[in-house]
Amino acid sequence: MNGLMMDFQLTLDAVLRRAEQHFHKKEIVTRLPDKSFHRYTYRDMAQRAKKLTLALKRLGIQKDDAVGTLCWNHYQHLEAYFAIPILGCVLHTLNLRLHPDDLVYIANDANDKAIIVDESLLPLLDSIKDQINAKTFIVISAGGDLPEGMLDYETLLAAEDVADFDDTALNLDENQAAATCYTSGTTGKPKGVLYSHRSMVLHSMAAALPDVLEIRESDCILPVVPMFHANSWGIPYAAAMAGPKLVFPGPFLDPESLLSAFVEEEVTVTAGVPTIWQGLLQMLDDDPKRFDLSKLRNLIVGGSAVPVSMLKNFQENHGLHITQAWGMTELSPLGTVSGLNSELKTESADKQYEYRAMQGNPVPLVEIRGRGDDGFIPWDGEAMGELEVRGPWISSAYFNRPDAADRFTDDGWFKTGDIVTIDDIGYIKIQDRSKDLVKSGGEWISSVDLENAIMGHPAVAEAAVIAIPHPKWDERPLAAVVLKEGQSVTGDEIKTYLADHVAKWWIPDAIEFIDEVPKTSVGKFKKTELREMFKDFEFAK
Amino acid sequence: MNGLMMDFQLTLDAVLRRAEQHFHKKEIVTRLPDKSFHRYTYRDMAQRAKKLTLALKRLGIQKDDAVGTLCWNHYQHLEAYFAIPILGCVLHTLNLRLHPDDLVYIANDANDKAIIVDESLLPLLDSIKDQINAKTFIVISAGGDLPEGMLDYETLLAAEDVADFDDTALNLDENQAAATCYTSGTTGKPKGVLYSHRSMVLHSMAAALPDVLEIRESDCILPVVPMFHANSWGIPYAAAMAGPKLVFPGPFLDPESLLSAFVEEEVTVTAGVPTIWQGLLQMLDDDPKRFDLSKLRNLIVGGSAVPVSMLKNFQENHGLHITQAWGMTELSPLGTVSGLNSELKTESADKQYEYRAMQGNPVPLVEIRGRGDDGFIPWDGEAMGELEVRGPWISSAYFNRPDAADRFTDDGWFKTGDIVTIDDIGYIKIQDRSKDLVKSGGEWISSVDLENAIMGHPAVAEAAVIAIPHPKWDERPLAAVVLKEGQSVTGDEIKTYLADHVAKWWIPDAIEFIDEVPKTSVGKFKKTELREMFKDFEFAK
Repeated sequence: MNGLMMDFQLTLDAVLRRAEQHFHKKEIVTRLPDKSFHRYTYRDMAQRAKKLTLALKRLGIQKDDAVGTLCWNHYQHLEAYFAIPILGCVLHTLNLRLHPDDLVYIANDANDKAIIVDESLLPLLDSIKDQINAKTFIVISAGGDLPEGMLDYETLLAAEDVADFDDTALNLDENQAAATCYTSGTTGKPKGVLYSHRSMVLHSMAAALPDVLEIRESDCILPVVPMFHANSWGIPYAAAMAGPKLVFPGPFLDPESLLSAFVEEEVTVTAGVPTIWQGLLQMLDDDPKRFDLSKLRNLIVGGSAVPVSMLKNFQENHGLHITQAWGMTELSPLGTVSGLNSELKTESADKQYEYRAMQGNPVPLVEIRGRGDDGFIPWDGEAMGELEVRGPWISSAYFNRPDAADRFTDDGWFKTGDIVTIDDIGYIKIQDRSKDLVKSGGEWISSVDLENAIMGHPAVAEAAVIAIPHPKWDERPLAAVVLKEGQSVTGDEIKTYLADHVAKWWIPDAIEFIDEVPKTSVGKFKKTELREMFKDFEFAK
Repeated sequence: MNGLMMDFQLTLDAVLRRAEQHFHKKEIVTRLPDKSFHRYTYRDMAQRAKKLTLALKRLGIQKDDAVGTLCWNHYQHLEAYFAIPILGCVLHTLNLRLHPDDLVYIANDANDKAIIVDESLLPLLDSIKDQINAKTFIVISAGGDLPEGMLDYETLLAAEDVADFDDTALNLDENQAAATCYTSGTTGKPKGVLYSHRSMVLHSMAAALPDVLEIRESDCILPVVPMFHANSWGIPYAAAMAGPKLVFPGPFLDPESLLSAFVEEEVTVTAGVPTIWQGLLQMLDDDPKRFDLSKLRNLIVGGSAVPVSMLKNFQENHGLHITQAWGMTELSPLGTVSGLNSELKTESADKQYEYRAMQGNPVPLVEIRGRGDDGFIPWDGEAMGELEVRGPWISSAYFNRPDAADRFTDDGWFKTGDIVTIDDIGYIKIQDRSKDLVKSGGEWISSVDLENAIMGHPAVAEAAVIAIPHPKWDERPLAAVVLKEGQSVTGDEIKTYLADHVAKWWIPDAIEFIDEVPKTSVGKFKKTELREMFKDFEFAK
């Protein structure tokens, strides 16, 4: 017997209606290419999103078609975030940092029929234009001449009358595909994740929860994380649901631009990868009093693990609180958030940092388990196993990739590829990517922990650990270390330092100094490349 | 084309798993009939809920069967809140304040097969036992002899082994009926509202949002609102999802018991109807320093409108913040919450109180509109119309009542019966129940506003306004007034006072002093009875 509740579909048009009806006066601010700020309201956004829907329809875009965006974070991108899914189409946020070959691959794999592109990114589009199937290009520009055959975004919108938009005729099913992102895998071809309206709406509501990202109407949020990267961690949709002021940084992700935006717009919450905050930290360290960041209550960090040293430095030297979140493109992306629960709130500062550096507890409706060699691991904070997850905003399959079915278990869980420990209240700590673990003498060494320990050394800017075959121990760790500017230290000094911080058998057999750790398009260490660099390295017998 | 997301069903077993896995150490505290506190954890709760599921199955309870509860707020009631729906059955929380005839009616209308009852409520059960179809009675007692043929709750649980509970065999569909509550209508037979798992899970997540009730793991929540009244406003399920400490008051809802529980258990959030807080206020006013309520950050009030005077008194004399919420049994029950948005935060204190005394903005995923005589009303804060709502936790029909289909519009909205104004950011203010408006000379007078104005008079404890037929104006208001103990005031003095607070033509033609305003089982003014009292009243010609 079913309940007698309304069959109200969880679709993004409901989120847009809410934004327009209740937050219409609230501001959306964007840093333009000339560095000035563009300002308008949620009402403007909603009206223009509806016009974009009409314009796309007029261009022949049909239900289920994919429409790509090759854009930075700005208000027109937000309009596309709503317009495309509401039309029953698939928003495909193209990652502009991908290699052009990969861009061609994903644009064609997703069947993009049209692409909305920033004028500043036309050179990139140009490099792939002839190889992709999309033939319609809509350019977001400040006006002026466009390349032959391309359409102007503003001209298209100006031709539409918002009164022609009929909200009641959408008839979207909540399971309808709404958007796609491709995983920026370090090996193999990128794989498409296909989100539904339902998954987006549920993810938005969960993201706003007090123990998750805590988004309220009175906030001002600046997502540094790109809108072409895992839905900007769900912030655009969660914002439209909760109503905070939104600030988009445009293409300016340098510390100076971000810090000044935080101050001028009174930003309360921001979100990005550790590399971004590392840069900010440097600038803050250089002149701690220059920026008044007293309104900024939360820096959300994800994408890579945050070293304790960074948490500490932000907190103790600048009074800024970092919240670590963990997710994946396949998770929409939110999986866990590392807050301090009431038990941890009475613990020592060190213990708190230790927990805050973990990946934390799952978001409501996300379920976790760890699978070791002998079945599911106990939740004891010690046993390591591969993290498996399930929930309403987690992939059940990749688009068009039956060959990747092995990433899903027979009983419907997603295998994350992350090796974790889970403690007795379900805090997870990622020890490694499954393929990055160092297996020494039958025991596992967490390259992530080791990297964080090395990065705790005052002279070290970055450190990446890889496994090198070893005649006796099977594998032993090699650390590739980047020193801070003007600093010098020897490998032996680092080893001596490490002796106080990790088990003796974890200390890397080799410390190699490099200029830069190779990174993926989203800022993660690219260990494949590092392994290539050291492929001929041999330990002495 | 559908998205490729997991088909993860929004069912209450997922909420219970979360509570058990992540909040298992957190406390659930209950005041027992002997006034001492019983303590156990969410893990204990989950384990016992599973045992109750097994016990009910053993008693022959089958999928879709309804199981009634006739209980105060306590931990066993919470166990039933999970056990019954997870079994695929319908939790029917019987309102113990209903007239026995109504109890018989709803128990039979819902097809209750069994009833779980507090020992202290056996006399009430006894008065209806022979007229209801349920033949299985499970008594929550402190031990000792039970009436012939009745089963002991603890004995049933003790006979079960939690290992027999198979989580993976539940296979619940999210649309499965989970619970039912009956509206305590002032006219006609109570009508059954049938909740689904989906509506409960979505409502729980929404309830916990920062701009709604704001429930976090570090909170301690004491729901005064009965668990037999509109799901205790969703708090039990929202708590299990978010993990706060929970404190149940048992049958002790007197100010002294509540205030001492707030202090001893360090309660941060509580929720109940205005009558409860009126009593507390009196005790606090009498001795403001007696109770240390510094941890209490939010008193959620619903069920009836809160007069500004009460908001002010709590805030200014006791530093306690009241958040007004509005809902209905048909809304699971949350519809709107009256927080201050960022615009209002810079307004004067008076303006803020005025807004906080409104019903506020809809909760995410709840949509509103107002229907006047000439179509939908503008959102101008002035036009009055009947509030219509829709959303995923709102009734689409009453159980077994095709005759009540007129409460739903053709396009699928629920007609609340409340007359409201809606301002330009969607704050609603209830002016009246549609049947309680006073229509004077073609204009509407809001009895609620008038009552609040009268209750602002220092000598007045309560005031209820009804319409009386008038030879010239069609209807004119009559105010039935209850004075505070030891106070005296004349009707003319009240009229003089009102002249400063309402339009002149709103001033009641008659002020009648009574000992008590008759109330419904959930503490709302029972205007039908008041009208009966004054049915022979005539205005002079």
